Amino acid sequence: MAATGREFFTAKTVTEALGDFRPAHRTATETVALDDAAGRVPAADILAGEALPGFDRSSVDGYAVRAQDTFGASESIPAYLNLAGSVAMGASADVVLPAHGAVSVPTGGALPDAADAVVMVEYTQEAIAGTIEVVRPVAPGEGIVRADEDIAPGRVAVAAGAPLRAQDIAMLAALGITELDVHARPVVSILATGDELIAPDADAVGPGQVRDALSSSVGALVREAGGRPQPPQIVRDDPGVLRDALRRALAHSDVAVICAGSSVGARDETAAAVAAMPRAEIWCHGLAIKPGKPTLLAASDGVPIIGLPGNPRSALVVFRLIGMPLVRRAGGWTAEHRVPQVARRLSRDLPSAAGRLDVVQARLCGDEEAEPIFGPSALLSVLTDADGYVIVPEDANGLSAGETVEVFLYR
Amino acid sequence: MAATGREFFTAKTVTEALGDFRPAHRTATETVALDDAAGRVPAADILAGEALPGFDRSSVDGYAVRAQDTFGASESIPAYLNLAGSVAMGASADVVLPAHGAVSVPTGGALPDAADAVVMVEYTQEAIAGTIEVVRPVAPGEGIVRADEDIAPGRVAVAAGAPLRAQDIAMLAALGITELDVHARPVVSILATGDELIAPDADAVGPGQVRDALSSSVGALVREAGGRPQPPQIVRDDPGVLRDALRRALAHSDVAVICAGSSVGARDETAAAVAAMPRAEIWCHGLAIKPGKPTLLAASDGVPIIGLPGNPRSALVVFRLIGMPLVRRAGGWTAEHRVPQVARRLSRDLPSAAGRLDVVQARLCGDEEAEPIFGPSALLSVLTDADGYVIVPEDANGLSAGETVEVFLYR
Repeated sequence: MAATGREFFTAKTVTEALGDFRPAHRTATETVALDDAAGRVPAADILAGEALPGFDRSSVDGYAVRAQDTFGASESIPAYLNLAGSVAMGASADVVLPAHGAVSVPTGGALPDAADAVVMVEYTQEAIAGTIEVVRPVAPGEGIVRADEDIAPGRVAVAAGAPLRAQDIAMLAALGITELDVHARPVVSILATGDELIAPDADAVGPGQVRDALSSSVGALVREAGGRPQPPQIVRDDPGVLRDALRRALAHSDVAVICAGSSVGARDETAAAVAAMPRAEIWCHGLAIKPGKPTLLAASDGVPIIGLPGNPRSALVVFRLIGMPLVRRAGGWTAEHRVPQVARRLSRDLPSAAGRLDVVQARLCGDEEAEPIFGPSALLSVLTDADGYVIVPEDANGLSAGETVEVFLYR
Repeated sequence: MAATGREFFTAKTVTEALGDFRPAHRTATETVALDDAAGRVPAADILAGEALPGFDRSSVDGYAVRAQDTFGASESIPAYLNLAGSVAMGASADVVLPAHGAVSVPTGGALPDAADAVVMVEYTQEAIAGTIEVVRPVAPGEGIVRADEDIAPGRVAVAAGAPLRAQDIAMLAALGITELDVHARPVVSILATGDELIAPDADAVGPGQVRDALSSSVGALVREAGGRPQPPQIVRDDPGVLRDALRRALAHSDVAVICAGSSVGARDETAAAVAAMPRAEIWCHGLAIKPGKPTLLAASDGVPIIGLPGNPRSALVVFRLIGMPLVRRAGGWTAEHRVPQVARRLSRDLPSAAGRLDVVQARLCGDEEAEPIFGPSALLSVLTDADGYVIVPEDANGLSAGETVEVFLYR
């Protein structure tokens, strides 16, 4: 058995890791079709090439007029305007608007040149055929969306560094931008080490063996963060085999993840394999987080390597908190990502040690309380039973029952 | 021009729509591989077929012992135990544990039959070769995860009706469940109507024309809700053409969306086309929401039909609030979906009318304030500029500057 009670040589806090441990590179760009672009991250600001809506449009169903022709109009003394024609949807406004005239125009229809306002149909009557009574004045610009009011050519339609939302897609479609350059999805290799591991689809579980729970679940989190997980690999607890597998993985990865064996010996082997990579830097070996202390953060040639703790529960906690932001950054995110959260009262005390960040799984109870779930850190059921998690920050000595806390939600 | 100032014949509130307007059917089930199952919704509870971890395991690096052999042990009077061998990771515990014996075992290793506790290596010394000094007593069960402690056979591993999270995937992988039955993604047809509409990739925009901004952006929201948008279709403002297109779409859809023309006439045509479908029920024509009042909710043969308002901004607001929950329900969700949110102080008053739900776009300013964004409802830029939205509930007469509100975030 390996050396015992050893201190990690360079422990860091979660705050330090989130602030300072960053990928050296972002992924290259690739061109995608607009219909596949939701959630993708533009590599550069995308500018409008034309104005929107592109022509002066009516924003109501009504009559295009010269505003001054309606001044003073009221229910008792309406303005009488001559109906000079109508504009059809999707057609140009060929009708000429004469002085004291009105042109019927639908919402979204183009305006005749001389019109500077649209009276809503609700404030008009066609009392005599061909004559419109207007019972309220309109100001110039009323009932109109100007040709470049939504966006003017050369303005930023969507900004770089944040994933595209539905409304960004709508704006790009409206501008006729149907292909765009986005960051490629970061390629993430996942190596699971441990002589006890067998593939999830293995027919039989031998004595002392467990199925690899991490490769597919870390892969799911990689996808959620916009990355592309590589097919999982189970690697024997053998220094040479791990080094070779890691070297091969790094050659085509933007981020590498090692799900380390759970024993002290296996963790040491992981650190040794990482240290043997080209231009390796071990950024921290040990993170002030519970669960997840044996986390290793390193890089080889600027490619981040995350060594996750051996037990699946700790590994998933650490990958959510540290790994997903790293994948997002490698994929071009500069925007902040937010986890859904809800404020709840703690049903009981959460003891903690200052200087360490505690991630405590919790169930929502009724409408007001959050109930912490305790249990050995090896149990996945603690995570599957949870609706979310509570964070006891690094500067706190625990949280008290009755205190209001944010529960970060899993769905 | 069509009839004016007409009231919608059956207006409903958003609360009524979310509570009572539901798809009659959920999608059928299909089998997917575990690696593709994240976010998918199991059609039935999935039970554990075996125990986890499956054998009594050590949860620490240390020595498997009979707990009673350590009772009374202390720094000054250690218990001396004979080292009887060791257990390797991933192997069975073939070693026999004799009375007053100890077997070296790594974290996750199997326990010899007679062992009922594991002493952490930190509380031991191998002072004399082959003899272990234990300086602290352990209680029976300490340092051990029992064979069925994570989950017992027959227990629910993951529940039906909620999308699978990373930890659910981990649990299924650990149980060897690598294929599972989930609800099929709801097929959602999107028809965009309006003579002014041209496809986003059209070469030239003619006078009075606009590019279809909704099909691809509503499609993005459909995907986000777990649905499968069908290729977009632009339909002319012609009653017969719309009826035929809708009938064809309904034949293979779980939800149908019509992005209605923006004029009153176009809206009437949409309602008429929907009313002509087989076993049509118009559930509401008019929703007490701003923006989005001209929303139509209907069904044909139990398939929900959503008629969205003509302008893209209103349509996206309504589809997020009403359409996405509908798609999720058609796809088997029974769990609640939560939008990320953050509490902020309003920078100014939000006037509203009681009885109507207002959705106000907002920007986050600094760390404490939310700044409402106003502007004509036709402008997409109001949405692209927003970080999220504030809801003025139906029972409120507006919200006041300085009030703390929840901002529902777009990312």
